[in-house]
Amino acid sequence: MTRVHVWGASGYGASEAIVSLSAHPLVELGLLESASLGGEPVGLHFPRLRTLDRFFDFPGAILSAIGPDDVVIMGGAHGSAKEVAPKFLEAGARVIDLSEDFRLAPTRAVYGFPERYKAQIAGARFVANPGCYPTATLLAVLPLAPFDVTQIIVDAKSGITGAGRKPSVRALYAEVAGDIHAYGLEGHRHEAEIVQELSAAGIDAPLLFTPHVVPLARGMLADAYIVMRSVPDASAVRAAYARYYAGNPFVRLLDAGVSPSVAAVAYTNDAEIAVSVHGNVVRAICAIDNLGKGAATQAVMNMNIMMGFPEQSGLVARPLATLEVLRPGAPTARRSG
Amino acid sequence: MTRVHVWGASGYGASEAIVSLSAHPLVELGLLESASLGGEPVGLHFPRLRTLDRFFDFPGAILSAIGPDDVVIMGGAHGSAKEVAPKFLEAGARVIDLSEDFRLAPTRAVYGFPERYKAQIAGARFVANPGCYPTATLLAVLPLAPFDVTQIIVDAKSGITGAGRKPSVRALYAEVAGDIHAYGLEGHRHEAEIVQELSAAGIDAPLLFTPHVVPLARGMLADAYIVMRSVPDASAVRAAYARYYAGNPFVRLLDAGVSPSVAAVAYTNDAEIAVSVHGNVVRAICAIDNLGKGAATQAVMNMNIMMGFPEQSGLVARPLATLEVLRPGAPTARRSG
Amino acid sequence: MTRVHVWGASGYGASEAIVSLSAHPLVELGLLESASLGGEPVGLHFPRLRTLDRFFDFPGAILSAIGPDDVVIMGGAHGSAKEVAPKFLEAGARVIDLSEDFRLAPTRAVYGFPERYKAQIAGARFVANPGCYPTATLLAVLPLAPFDVTQIIVDAKSGITGAGRKPSVRALYAEVAGDIHAYGLEGHRHEAEIVQELSAAGIDAPLLFTPHVVPLARGMLADAYIVMRSVPDASAVRAAYARYYAGNPFVRLLDAGVSPSVAAVAYTNDAEIAVSVHGNVVRAICAIDNLGKGAATQAVMNMNIMMGFPEQSGLVARPLATLEVLRPGAPTARRSG
Amino acid sequence: MTRVHVWGASGYGASEAIVSLSAHPLVELGLLESASLGGEPVGLHFPRLRTLDRFFDFPGAILSAIGPDDVVIMGGAHGSAKEVAPKFLEAGARVIDLSEDFRLAPTRAVYGFPERYKAQIAGARFVANPGCYPTATLLAVLPLAPFDVTQIIVDAKSGITGAGRKPSVRALYAEVAGDIHAYGLEGHRHEAEIVQELSAAGIDAPLLFTPHVVPLARGMLADAYIVMRSVPDASAVRAAYARYYAGNPFVRLLDAGVSPSVAAVAYTNDAEIAVSVHGNVVRAICAIDNLGKGAATQAVMNMNIMMGFPEQSGLVARPLATLEVLRPGAPTARRSG
Repeated sequence: MTRVHVWGASGYGASEAIVSLSAHPLVELGLLESASLGGEPVGLHFPRLRTLDRFFDFPGAILSAIGPDDVVIMGGAHGSAKEVAPKFLEAGARVIDLSEDFRLAPTRAVYGFPERYKAQIAGARFVANPGCYPTATLLAVLPLAPFDVTQIIVDAKSGITGAGRKPSVRALYAEVAGDIHAYGLEGHRHEAEIVQELSAAGIDAPLLFTPHVVPLARGMLADAYIVMRSVPDASAVRAAYARYYAGNPFVRLLDAGVSPSVAAVAYTNDAEIAVSVHGNVVRAICAIDNLGKGAATQAVMNMNIMMGFPEQSGLVARPLATLEVLRPGAPTARRSG
Repeated sequence: MTRVHVWGASGYGASEAIVSLSAHPLVELGLLESASLGGEPVGLHFPRLRTLDRFFDFPGAILSAIGPDDVVIMGGAHGSAKEVAPKFLEAGARVIDLSEDFRLAPTRAVYGFPERYKAQIAGARFVANPGCYPTATLLAVLPLAPFDVTQIIVDAKSGITGAGRKPSVRALYAEVAGDIHAYGLEGHRHEAEIVQELSAAGIDAPLLFTPHVVPLARGMLADAYIVMRSVPDASAVRAAYARYYAGNPFVRLLDAGVSPSVAAVAYTNDAEIAVSVHGNVVRAICAIDNLGKGAATQAVMNMNIMMGFPEQSGLVARPLATLEVLRPGAPTARRSG
Repeated sequence: MTRVHVWGASGYGASEAIVSLSAHPLVELGLLESASLGGEPVGLHFPRLRTLDRFFDFPGAILSAIGPDDVVIMGGAHGSAKEVAPKFLEAGARVIDLSEDFRLAPTRAVYGFPERYKAQIAGARFVANPGCYPTATLLAVLPLAPFDVTQIIVDAKSGITGAGRKPSVRALYAEVAGDIHAYGLEGHRHEAEIVQELSAAGIDAPLLFTPHVVPLARGMLADAYIVMRSVPDASAVRAAYARYYAGNPFVRLLDAGVSPSVAAVAYTNDAEIAVSVHGNVVRAICAIDNLGKGAATQAVMNMNIMMGFPEQSGLVARPLATLEVLRPGAPTARRSG
Repeated sequence: MTRVHVWGASGYGASEAIVSLSAHPLVELGLLESASLGGEPVGLHFPRLRTLDRFFDFPGAILSAIGPDDVVIMGGAHGSAKEVAPKFLEAGARVIDLSEDFRLAPTRAVYGFPERYKAQIAGARFVANPGCYPTATLLAVLPLAPFDVTQIIVDAKSGITGAGRKPSVRALYAEVAGDIHAYGLEGHRHEAEIVQELSAAGIDAPLLFTPHVVPLARGMLADAYIVMRSVPDASAVRAAYARYYAGNPFVRLLDAGVSPSVAAVAYTNDAEIAVSVHGNVVRAICAIDNLGKGAATQAVMNMNIMMGFPEQSGLVARPLATLEVLRPGAPTARRSG
């Protein structure tokens, strides 16, 4: 059993990772470290983890407990991993960071987008997990690399957990319910990440990216409208997608006329894609769970690849019931029978 | 006081029209006719109209009661107005039809989009009220008629009331909550209406229109991405919008960086528009209430123009409290003091 | 025109009061003062007040501007009115405080529950506006004062705006959506207020009050189960409610079998009550809008009574459209034509 | 591997059972039969079962395919099981019926409430699965059988899936969102079921049961207020609950002050209970998932007991990813690796 610690464990992405890990047959939960919630029962803050009444450990706990085959999943806020991740690596752990701190070149981490970088991930000690917007956008656009793209327009809709669990007026229930609006009209921090990866794949057309907040706790839909220099062959376009995702158990290319649905992928590592051609515009719609494939389950998939586990380990079910209590001092948590 | 009857009064658009009319200082509610709910108390079916416990009249009631200066707002399902509207006109009423039955040429009705056809509406006896998707799309795109447009991409998001009040699995709470998805991937009936009006304004570029259902009871956001032949001058684009909506009290052109919000226009006849230029793509985002500016309040505005009332009559407030009971047989309803 | 200032203007109750006041035919909006948002455009923080782009004034603005016939509505957090309200009174203003600071005896304010204290409110310079839970509970229970009550059980459900607009994890969209739970299991601060008023009416039976958060932005339902010493006469119970609310335009006693609905009273000053007898238990269910009858519109009703305005002034409609801009320095705001 | 068929497979309870069964290590999915959706892909109607593109079988399919050790879970509407269940039993299957058809005496089925009837269920061929309201209510009240109860008041709140998947206006998104209301004010069909079981346990006090619809797709909270003849000893009350649920892995008795949360039990077979004493009233709050412990997972738990499987089999995880396609004609479905 590989021991997996979660650092920065109080966010939505981290809590989702804890849920996924607790259902994973090949790992055991290690320490859960949170600067803001140190000492508090997990279940008080995350009802879904009610039975995991293990106390969060105080800062530094993971670093002093790391064993040579341990994994650390880092769920802290953007900016927080910069200094800490190297220490975990030096202590011998494999590290997967959910923040944006190590995604952009130059970086010592491998970009954890397994549909493109599986080989590199397999050999990596340090993976930068992609953002949810980049994940959905790249899944929708990358298969078009062989075509002559002149403009990329992405209209993305995200559940509010993408804004994190730090309290803010804009994430309050009474602000989100009943509204939908675009944001970041003058630029969004995820654009650089998307452009870096499109460019690495040879797609250099300008990108217009417009994110929206919709009244969802979780889920993401990215509608990509890719303008081509000329009218592409519809069957060639479809074949490109089929080829790109062949052998990938988590990406479903839907039949013509079937719409990707956030409800169909909620709580999973799945992605659904619909692609169609309209004159010289290709429309590719991708649905993922922003906390699943866009964060936590993608991290677990990356861990599986890094560790040589089967890719789907721990990703075909999620825990529903009792998790055993682990008291501080005890080295690991196990699920109860 | 002008008497206004509502035919096909059991739908969401019609109920919204009743709300608007009951707050209108220059009209009185006439008969409310519904084939499906005839004889039932209004308040039993529409909690917001709880105090309007006037019974719905049985089919034919309005036709036999029409006076020469009456107005009929038709709220029936698409297809239902085809035969009935002419009868109301022959009986001497002015008619505003919320359905799509008389929107497409050849038609004897004036297209009730006041930002463009105010003069024609002023002289009309029969107005076809635009659809909600066309309203939001045209508001976003029409000011660009002077420019050289090569492709129009519209990504629209609508509250579920757009699907009507007839029960269907796809409109159930448990299906809509927690999901977002595109629909009509192979064509949507509103496209012809949009194309007709764009073309009438001289915009003949191809349109790719993608509607989505989002977890909202009401509200609509249309993100229009208009691809130009060359990079337009940003200030000229903005000036075109300012000019187009000058003197229009219901359309707000927002400052740079401010996002149109469905919450800002809910229950109103307002529209919010943000426009910006990104290379040779103009992005114009428009927020309306699909039941307000996209249906009922637009109908009231059209009525105001037809009747020579001030444009904003009845559109700056909505009723909150007690409406007087009207029993069948009594000719009109009045608001209680 | 009476000038009405709003102090502590950044909360949900205060913003609702601004909406109500802007539709009031006999008042004009004065200064809006907020410690946290001083200097910021209103519309940036409250989309519904988008067009009120008047800047919030800095602390002290209202106090220095108060005229002899002005009214101040205080919307600050609980505890904040203690020191400031007396200053407004000394400066000659009439004051209505939405906080709990002056509700409990001994207090110099009149308790602003108009169904019981209308005469006192009419002569008051200072009114403590009731809490939303007490309002709904008292409406449901007070008419039973003539009966022999032995136990009162209230199961109340509230929209999350009751928790205020200060950011907190528990009020985040992702926490509220998909959940319902009781809170304050070991005591809730509103109990003292309810008990004080029940006792004043001669009802001294023990109260068990259980509040719940439900996934609503606004609205409140209080189910009161009143245990009697013996089986009461059902028609006598119903007659007691009818008598208690006779002549009250905002309280609707529903027919047998009809359920009070939060949707029926949203955005209004209305209350709906259903009462029925089950052995020796009377069940009285009351629906109000926690921000309307439970806060802002109740404050406007109190103001109407204090000023000698008709009770329903400003409470039968709410503003939908453009409010004129008022720049700091200008003394009041007016609605645009 | 035991083969489990699902009859009446188009409802919410049945779809939830399919999800649970597909994660069960000791069973394989058999035929899915639906009168209304026969021949249609499962995934077209249930996005969560997108990958289960096995076609529904036409009426009669299960009956003709039943093997001697098969189990049939019946998910049809109330009334539909009356004639069909006996045929499945005669064909040799074990049957678990989710409808109310066989719950009330006289009945040939065992009432499938495992916290009370585990021994009888273990030997049964036919189990009537309890309703969601009775499940939550009985969990909250039954431990009080040793006390002297004089009145039971239950205020229950349910997600809208409890109303089924048959389209109706009252279950539309636009009706449920933004509202909360009681229903069945003059009597609810579940009362007889609750009274039967309370009485069987020796609790004969009158019951006042008030169900509410809240804006949730799934989840149920029952607040039970049990009036005693005299003030009970608080620790004796708590001890009674602890004793009643000792050894039951799915029922969590929460610490004082902690509130049962629908979010904590969503998608699970868990129940959370908080109990406290207030004078001579005991308040017991129970949270369950109306589709889980209130329907599908309770059926799986009953199946486990009937079959001699470990009670928690299939109930500690749920499927997240790809299910293998099964074509009509093939006898069973298996999950893909």
